[in-house]
Amino acid sequence: MRNFNQMDASDISESVRSQAVSAESVAEHFLGCVEARELSIKAFAAFDPGQVRAQVRQLNNGHFKGPLAGVPVGIKDIFDTADHPTGFYSPIYADNRPSRDAHVVALLRQAGAVIMGKTHTTEFAYMHTGPTRNPHDLERTPGSSSAGSAAGMAAGFFPIALGTQTAGSLIKPASYCGLYAFKPTYGLVSLEGVKPLAPSFDTVGWYGRSVRDLQLLAEVLIPGIAQRTDERRPGKFGFCRTARWDQVDEDIARSLDAAVEDLRRAGHQVSEVELPQAFATVFDDHLLINDCEGARSLAKELQARPELLSDEVLAMIERARQTTWEQESAAKKRLATLAPVLEALFKPFDAMLGASCGIVAPLGLGATGPSDFSKFWMAFGLPQINIPLVRNAGALPAGLQMIGGFRDDSILLHAAEQVEAVLRAAD
Amino acid sequence: MRNFNQMDASDISESVRSQAVSAESVAEHFLGCVEARELSIKAFAAFDPGQVRAQVRQLNNGHFKGPLAGVPVGIKDIFDTADHPTGFYSPIYADNRPSRDAHVVALLRQAGAVIMGKTHTTEFAYMHTGPTRNPHDLERTPGSSSAGSAAGMAAGFFPIALGTQTAGSLIKPASYCGLYAFKPTYGLVSLEGVKPLAPSFDTVGWYGRSVRDLQLLAEVLIPGIAQRTDERRPGKFGFCRTARWDQVDEDIARSLDAAVEDLRRAGHQVSEVELPQAFATVFDDHLLINDCEGARSLAKELQARPELLSDEVLAMIERARQTTWEQESAAKKRLATLAPVLEALFKPFDAMLGASCGIVAPLGLGATGPSDFSKFWMAFGLPQINIPLVRNAGALPAGLQMIGGFRDDSILLHAAEQVEAVLRAAD
Repeated sequence: MRNFNQMDASDISESVRSQAVSAESVAEHFLGCVEARELSIKAFAAFDPGQVRAQVRQLNNGHFKGPLAGVPVGIKDIFDTADHPTGFYSPIYADNRPSRDAHVVALLRQAGAVIMGKTHTTEFAYMHTGPTRNPHDLERTPGSSSAGSAAGMAAGFFPIALGTQTAGSLIKPASYCGLYAFKPTYGLVSLEGVKPLAPSFDTVGWYGRSVRDLQLLAEVLIPGIAQRTDERRPGKFGFCRTARWDQVDEDIARSLDAAVEDLRRAGHQVSEVELPQAFATVFDDHLLINDCEGARSLAKELQARPELLSDEVLAMIERARQTTWEQESAAKKRLATLAPVLEALFKPFDAMLGASCGIVAPLGLGATGPSDFSKFWMAFGLPQINIPLVRNAGALPAGLQMIGGFRDDSILLHAAEQVEAVLRAAD
Repeated sequence: MRNFNQMDASDISESVRSQAVSAESVAEHFLGCVEARELSIKAFAAFDPGQVRAQVRQLNNGHFKGPLAGVPVGIKDIFDTADHPTGFYSPIYADNRPSRDAHVVALLRQAGAVIMGKTHTTEFAYMHTGPTRNPHDLERTPGSSSAGSAAGMAAGFFPIALGTQTAGSLIKPASYCGLYAFKPTYGLVSLEGVKPLAPSFDTVGWYGRSVRDLQLLAEVLIPGIAQRTDERRPGKFGFCRTARWDQVDEDIARSLDAAVEDLRRAGHQVSEVELPQAFATVFDDHLLINDCEGARSLAKELQARPELLSDEVLAMIERARQTTWEQESAAKKRLATLAPVLEALFKPFDAMLGASCGIVAPLGLGATGPSDFSKFWMAFGLPQINIPLVRNAGALPAGLQMIGGFRDDSILLHAAEQVEAVLRAAD
């Protein structure tokens, strides 16, 4: 029997479509993985093997031609699902049973994917953490807010998973758990049926086992996405440290340096890019806008059941209360003014490189560490990818981040394939 | 007995709160209006007097202090509602019964409002029209897509109503039906539980019987909105014709001229504003982005039930297919480049004035006329208000449009009150 944990989603669906393997055997393999480790990982907010098997039987009634035929997928519990409860990790929604699927969940089903279950999120995808543990070290956080999707990926519960990102909710868990992750350009993927937090930033994204998997999901979830170039010329990359480089552990900085050296040796260009001083305000502006929009998004929950909101959410709402309308307007205006400056900096490059996180997954489950290296780019809606860094055996995962120009998602995915090839070869 | 159709929502809720009238008598009055005219108007997609009365009984159990206590509201059938079906005027969703309320519907209930029913929209708030007729002339369209909310307002079925706007879906029906309408700045009002069409533009808005009503709803639906200034200095207005002034009927142009004269006579300043030539592309760029985003938003419906989509939606999807990724990127970039130019043009003014529509409601129910005067400002996310123009007795309604700067919603509402006072005095 094949080991489906040594195949990526692209391989698995091809095997199912060609009938080299059955969708049942795929599902049973992953159900076995969940059974073996879920009690210690706690990736799932809702999981029902009967539901999984029922979906596979349905698939066998003729939906085998989809690009994700028979591929199990984890769904962050912030997406509505018609056949699973949807709780947003909030007691307010303990009994919430949506009547229909979120847009992207429906597209995954239409492509032949099998929903393995709902994965733990932080409360409303903000900061109050759930019970999920990092499969690389159970005493450490998997990162947030797409914690269950990331931990479930790392534990081999499914080969692809959906998440969302408002600050660092995809890239940070990917860095901490050693996963490929893609956060598309803001606005490209439908948010229908996804609980909003900060609508100026909220973006659907996903995890996969390879850049090829990230691309496959992009074709399913962004209908009409630009064709990928097949150009084979060497990549042109910028390397951008941002104003938070002092937060990067020496060990991670060394791994990033080594990756850059590997890229150069493979014939790719990597140039240092310095950001103008004006960009130092971006981190705080993202925070301020996130607070104000988060408070508006949760206004109805605050009015109806304030006693069921976490301290983290209440603190956010309190910060929003102390922020004036003019301060929020000014923050938005600063970002709008900086966007074309950043665009010009991106111009010479296929993609920007940098750290995904300054640290490895910290000890403890109650906090998940800063998201600065992710949220800096989130402030401008740019597409982001995490590529796991090659590290010493036994070391905890860390990630190389790649950032693309606005709507240059296909160029970024192509560049990420080049980088993946070099880093895998160095493994 | 009071005539609740001569009161605005602010008056009605105050009377209910002070127990001068009962919520029952308010509801029964409006139920009577519906009974008298709904068969000819067809404003409702879903209407159940039993539901309305049950809500009033619930209110009587102690929720009388809300700012909308006992005020009946019409809800466009593009918002999810837990106690009414939600059909998007699409046969695909004929049996759709959402499990929870859209964010704004929940906020309205928490404020004490009574949901009168779901009002007809065009299919997915795009162009395929429903059965609704214009109360001012049953042979004419009420405008789209918030058709049922607008026609129901004009017929006296409720004193406030929710709608959405992607191109001209609030301002056009308001102009055709003679209503006060407010479309807030893009991104301020939560879209949770609202079916997306073009996420770069989609905005929740509402109808009321006075600018005061528009303001009241803003305070309920935009928690934390800036306090209104009470400054009593004369208003400073720009008058902007846009590149489509040749579409304005002589009669409407005359009414707008008369309104400007009235404003000047009342001591307000009105200056002509010319747009640079570069803005001529805005109309087409809005259309192109609307097509591409609309096609992505309806991708799951297209895959699942293409035979149940209208010709209008299929044509939109076909235009999107023939648009390249680069064309869409270029359109977005042009708008981003023009936004600061427009902002500078707004600087000297409290608000811009212009036409809401070039024509009165056209004959027939199958088409609703152009939305150019609205969608021009939608392309930049600016807040918009329709003020009914005073016209000759028997003439069909038309509207004066007021446009505010980005996030200057409170300044715009204040300016609209000044304009309302002048135009009502001229009545």
